[in-house]
Amino acid sequence: MFQLRAPASRRGAFFSPLPLGARILLPAPPRGGRPATMFDLLQTDPNTKARLGRLSTRRGVIETPVFMPVGTQATVKAIDPRELTEMGAQIVLSNTYHLAIRPGIEIIRAAGGLHRFMGWEGPILTDSGGYQVFSLAKIRKIRAHGVEFRSHVDGAPLFLGPKEAIAIQRALGSDIAMAFDECPPHDAPLRELEAAVERTIRWARECREQPRAEGQALFGVVQGGAHADLRERCARAVAELAFDGYAIGGVSVGEPEPEMLRAVDLTEPFLPPDKPRYAMGLGTPRQIVELTARGVDMFDCVLPTRVARNGTAFTRRGAFAVKAGACKGQFIPIEEGCSCFACRRFTRAYIRHLLNVNEILGLRLVSLHNLHFYLELMREIRAHIAAGTFAQFRAEFLARYRPTERVLAAGGGSALA
Amino acid sequence: MFQLRAPASRRGAFFSPLPLGARILLPAPPRGGRPATMFDLLQTDPNTKARLGRLSTRRGVIETPVFMPVGTQATVKAIDPRELTEMGAQIVLSNTYHLAIRPGIEIIRAAGGLHRFMGWEGPILTDSGGYQVFSLAKIRKIRAHGVEFRSHVDGAPLFLGPKEAIAIQRALGSDIAMAFDECPPHDAPLRELEAAVERTIRWARECREQPRAEGQALFGVVQGGAHADLRERCARAVAELAFDGYAIGGVSVGEPEPEMLRAVDLTEPFLPPDKPRYAMGLGTPRQIVELTARGVDMFDCVLPTRVARNGTAFTRRGAFAVKAGACKGQFIPIEEGCSCFACRRFTRAYIRHLLNVNEILGLRLVSLHNLHFYLELMREIRAHIAAGTFAQFRAEFLARYRPTERVLAAGGGSALA
Repeated sequence: MFQLRAPASRRGAFFSPLPLGARILLPAPPRGGRPATMFDLLQTDPNTKARLGRLSTRRGVIETPVFMPVGTQATVKAIDPRELTEMGAQIVLSNTYHLAIRPGIEIIRAAGGLHRFMGWEGPILTDSGGYQVFSLAKIRKIRAHGVEFRSHVDGAPLFLGPKEAIAIQRALGSDIAMAFDECPPHDAPLRELEAAVERTIRWARECREQPRAEGQALFGVVQGGAHADLRERCARAVAELAFDGYAIGGVSVGEPEPEMLRAVDLTEPFLPPDKPRYAMGLGTPRQIVELTARGVDMFDCVLPTRVARNGTAFTRRGAFAVKAGACKGQFIPIEEGCSCFACRRFTRAYIRHLLNVNEILGLRLVSLHNLHFYLELMREIRAHIAAGTFAQFRAEFLARYRPTERVLAAGGGSALA
Repeated sequence: MFQLRAPASRRGAFFSPLPLGARILLPAPPRGGRPATMFDLLQTDPNTKARLGRLSTRRGVIETPVFMPVGTQATVKAIDPRELTEMGAQIVLSNTYHLAIRPGIEIIRAAGGLHRFMGWEGPILTDSGGYQVFSLAKIRKIRAHGVEFRSHVDGAPLFLGPKEAIAIQRALGSDIAMAFDECPPHDAPLRELEAAVERTIRWARECREQPRAEGQALFGVVQGGAHADLRERCARAVAELAFDGYAIGGVSVGEPEPEMLRAVDLTEPFLPPDKPRYAMGLGTPRQIVELTARGVDMFDCVLPTRVARNGTAFTRRGAFAVKAGACKGQFIPIEEGCSCFACRRFTRAYIRHLLNVNEILGLRLVSLHNLHFYLELMREIRAHIAAGTFAQFRAEFLARYRPTERVLAAGGGSALA
């Protein structure tokens, strides 16, 4: 299935702790045929740019706008696949960079691909590893066809570029693969942003030429910071390559929220309307509502599970700390009316106790609730776009969603009822 | 429902971080009537002392021999109540000492009792806190009616004795409460063991006189180390008090296995045959089989969940480290033929990866498997006692159950098939 090839002139081994000069995996020639993924734009909101769509993959149909729970290391943190199914997750994201380092692609290929490895039969989107190479890896050197860097785990020399990123994603067998891009810091100087855009375009072309797994879709990525010209240049050039979808990259990289929204606003007009748009790594519940209004169809974010592990829960009225003393005697669910497993069966008082004594069930329950909250938010968003009431929903949601302190001050239970 | 009383001459507050001299909870007078718990001895093995029984509690019937998963802090570690039900747990154990310190009995009483607090509707056995007072607490002074000590969490001065232990268990609303005993170290000098036995008998009498929750059973505890005279003396005296069941205490306190077995052998003949016998804090799978053969009906142990968090899994051929390199490419379940959630859906290779990258799902899956293994072992034990084949099962199980190293050396999958 795979051909092995010696790594020509590259010094770093191909994304696995092999000695320098070791043989690396490269995929077999294409089997022919375009991927089967197709996007149907079902409806556009009359008052905003919000869109209702349907994304067909070989492992199922995804209704958009969609939120993708993040399973960085082949598991959504603290959650199992049955729970994902029960909460209505349609697709999960997993990270090429992390998986290639641990357990290594050979293991996942031997398992029969990522779906079988992690026991999730629904669609999977894999990122390209580009973002992690630029954020996590140590000592990197950008070359013409990729990046030399050292593993953030053990310092091993590795190389990742368009060819390798697609080969890895092909081996993972994800339903949607992402093009390998360069993601500079949000405060990079203009010259650096320009170079990143040019490389991202060139690498997008290289990715487009690589063979993929059967039925695997490929999304292009647009960079360009918050610069109008660069965003337009990158979006137009990447769109010309006729990807199955388009991601807005270079957001959620530490920039202030207005800059992030500006980057999306500057990109969206140049993306083909008949393809799904994905805002990478975003966002808070408010941001998801706002970005939906700006025409974004797909989201992923570690926020719901990450803050859960610190005991922070999302509700329609804002996030609050379940660990807070206010919850000590509150024998009510995290959010009244919520139908998640945690809210159906457990109280704030109990979950607070679990968090206080470091019991795993505590962060599991908050993780379950938070992911359910995000998925439920998307269900509501889709229903309101379908009903033509999204603009009203957006206004009401933003008015109701308050900062943490105010939720707690409002007295817990009744405030969240 | 409860009367409040100032703590007469005691210096420590009643098991809660109250200032010295604060008021403490004491239960209302008894409502009359013996608890409804009843034990039916259904069958005795012809070749060993193994017994098949049925223990009726107000929240359900428990088939014995039974293993009770340990939910020290009102949760079985990493596991939720739905999973406990799915794996066939009949009863769980929870710890009075830990719960009284965090979240505090007031919270659990306000929740409507421990069952409602933790979302587990099946039977619960609570220990008395005696063991923890002697193993965890700092700076303790033994008094006539209990023990003054300082909390292991924050050093707060606390007092626990027969009256308090039963009052707390009454507030928790457990289905089976345990008498407050003194549990000395296994290597305590004879004089100390003698004194502990006398206090344990006196405190058993005091516990027996306390009012309990409606339908709440009370088990007596036998101490006496591995000394024949002390075990007989304690067992006879405690049995005279007509408890609903009897626990063999002072085992699983660091003593060598032969000493533990000897303590059980020295106690069992003096326990009423028509009441359930419970070996506290035991044991390994081999020990459970051995103790069943010695006439023990009930077990609890942290082992299956504790070792799971280090990545050690139990199988019929012994325990092994799922983290071991040998599992890296093993795309087979932890144990072939096992029907637990982990074995039905995930491979060793995947679980090893999760453990290696510190994903919570890894230790969750091994915890699920190990508890299921223990419960399945008890199901087999009961079936063999019922069929009259327990002695043969015991011999075969002990012959097959090997130390960790041999399981791994035998090559994983095939060895465990």
